[in-house]
Amino acid sequence: MNPAPDPELALEVLTDLVRTDLEACNRLIVERMQSPVALIPQLAAHLVAAGGKRIRPLLTLAAARLCGHRGQRHVALAACVEFIHTATLLHDDVVDESALRRGAPSANAVFGNKPSVLVGDFLFARAFQIMVADGSLRVLDILATASATIAEGEVLQLVTQNDTATTEEQYLQVIEGKTAALFAAATEVGAVVAERPQAEAEAMREYGHCLGVAFQLVDDALDYSASQAALGKTVGDDFREGKITLPVLLAFATADETERGFWRRVLEERDQSESDLDRAIGLMQARGTLQATITRAREYGARALEALSIFPDGAERRALAGIVEFCIARAR
Amino acid sequence: MNPAPDPELALEVLTDLVRTDLEACNRLIVERMQSPVALIPQLAAHLVAAGGKRIRPLLTLAAARLCGHRGQRHVALAACVEFIHTATLLHDDVVDESALRRGAPSANAVFGNKPSVLVGDFLFARAFQIMVADGSLRVLDILATASATIAEGEVLQLVTQNDTATTEEQYLQVIEGKTAALFAAATEVGAVVAERPQAEAEAMREYGHCLGVAFQLVDDALDYSASQAALGKTVGDDFREGKITLPVLLAFATADETERGFWRRVLEERDQSESDLDRAIGLMQARGTLQATITRAREYGARALEALSIFPDGAERRALAGIVEFCIARAR
Repeated sequence: MNPAPDPELALEVLTDLVRTDLEACNRLIVERMQSPVALIPQLAAHLVAAGGKRIRPLLTLAAARLCGHRGQRHVALAACVEFIHTATLLHDDVVDESALRRGAPSANAVFGNKPSVLVGDFLFARAFQIMVADGSLRVLDILATASATIAEGEVLQLVTQNDTATTEEQYLQVIEGKTAALFAAATEVGAVVAERPQAEAEAMREYGHCLGVAFQLVDDALDYSASQAALGKTVGDDFREGKITLPVLLAFATADETERGFWRRVLEERDQSESDLDRAIGLMQARGTLQATITRAREYGARALEALSIFPDGAERRALAGIVEFCIARAR
Repeated sequence: MNPAPDPELALEVLTDLVRTDLEACNRLIVERMQSPVALIPQLAAHLVAAGGKRIRPLLTLAAARLCGHRGQRHVALAACVEFIHTATLLHDDVVDESALRRGAPSANAVFGNKPSVLVGDFLFARAFQIMVADGSLRVLDILATASATIAEGEVLQLVTQNDTATTEEQYLQVIEGKTAALFAAATEVGAVVAERPQAEAEAMREYGHCLGVAFQLVDDALDYSASQAALGKTVGDDFREGKITLPVLLAFATADETERGFWRRVLEERDQSESDLDRAIGLMQARGTLQATITRAREYGARALEALSIFPDGAERRALAGIVEFCIARAR
């Protein structure tokens, strides 16, 4: 597998490759988020206009093309994937009390928590309406199951929050749910819509799953290492909320008694002072846990590339391979 | 149409009539709300154990039987209806900041807003998984559309809150969305699962729709007239939140200048003192707006009974007719 030479460009390469489909998908997103209740498109547009990278719908579009789909069904299903993603973002920001999303004030900060919850519900329901119009029970099954798994991951994240006894296994379950489930569904739907054999649908799903896990691992490392501008959200959010992510988990596992006391105070009791984030980052660097998290992401990235290997070489496969490197390279 | 002689007994009559189906439905609800993430069934059980009347799934079960359905598909679909209803209750209570639900502390009060939002999402997704397993795209369409309409109604309610310029038409749009949409879907699904001609599905839908509007009109009157024990939630909730319901709308429309000043202060500015709820109730009684709201509910009730008239007379039709009177009689 030869990914694109410059990972920074990989997203552009993928976007260019499916540009016509993506534009059709974007038009459909705007069209289907309309409602006689004006606040719904207003709030939805706030998030859409804030300019996500559209990674998930791009994955559906490219996967369908890689699998030889020649029709247009994948466009509507890519929009469903983005609607479900947007709905979970709206609810996440309410749950996390986030003030920033994609570098702009979050919807809950601008419009309040209440409409964010309800517009999330609307987008979720609308996604299912679009899937019904498409008419594939298999697609409906994949995305309904992904939606349930996302919610389970989010609840588990809430339960393990502020609990330094959280295991790596639980952490993995959280990120497989909250992030990898939709990546996996997005790519699997691409193969399903192309009516490919089960083995290809499974390979596509494996690619998406591993990519999603790698993506979230990098995200969790970035929360302690990125500049705020690069992250598009507040740095140290996870720390302030006491989320038990892999960099923290590994630092706690190798900590001495004094350090454990520090982690318990800041994460469990959430008794944090100004300098605590810097100290946390210092401990992580000393133990190499941010690097270890990226190494783990690279392992998942390699599995994602391996899953792609059953597909014919070509522009689509190279673009999807490039996205793996793109997701990991964000950590530089 | 001869409804059951005693409206108080109508719910028992309906429940008895489909008891075996309802018990199967209740078992399925408990079974399908399970998750490896223990907080999900814990929180869901809190609401299930708080003992709703199960009106919506009862409607699906009875409608299917009235339409001659002999299989068991309606049991799973009745569970879907209840899951969607429970999901909206969880999100409503977060949005309304409610402390009580069905006479017990609300889930958000016990578990917090965050898990309430996420468990609502889980139940919603799970409902769609069950529908996919049932395999009817038409049923999926009905319930996906109802879910989108519910969210639209809830957002419109939020937008019109604290706005005394809200029209009767907007109010009707709110309650058709937030309440009647799921009643209509619940009964329509019963006819659809029985594979009856379109006219019967439409009649069933009309019955559910009118029953839902009547139900909500009565609910909105009860918020100003019931005892807290009978209502199972805090009396005056709508007033405190500045919700513009029909009793308020009619009182404002016929108010003199002093009274308008009062309504604006308490509902728009939400500047309320201890005695304001009593004054509001006094004004409503003087103008007969609570009674007018019940009269409107009776009109919808009559339309619901009319819609039933195309079905053969028998225990099911009589039980469904009785439910109309039951919903309205709560206002006594």
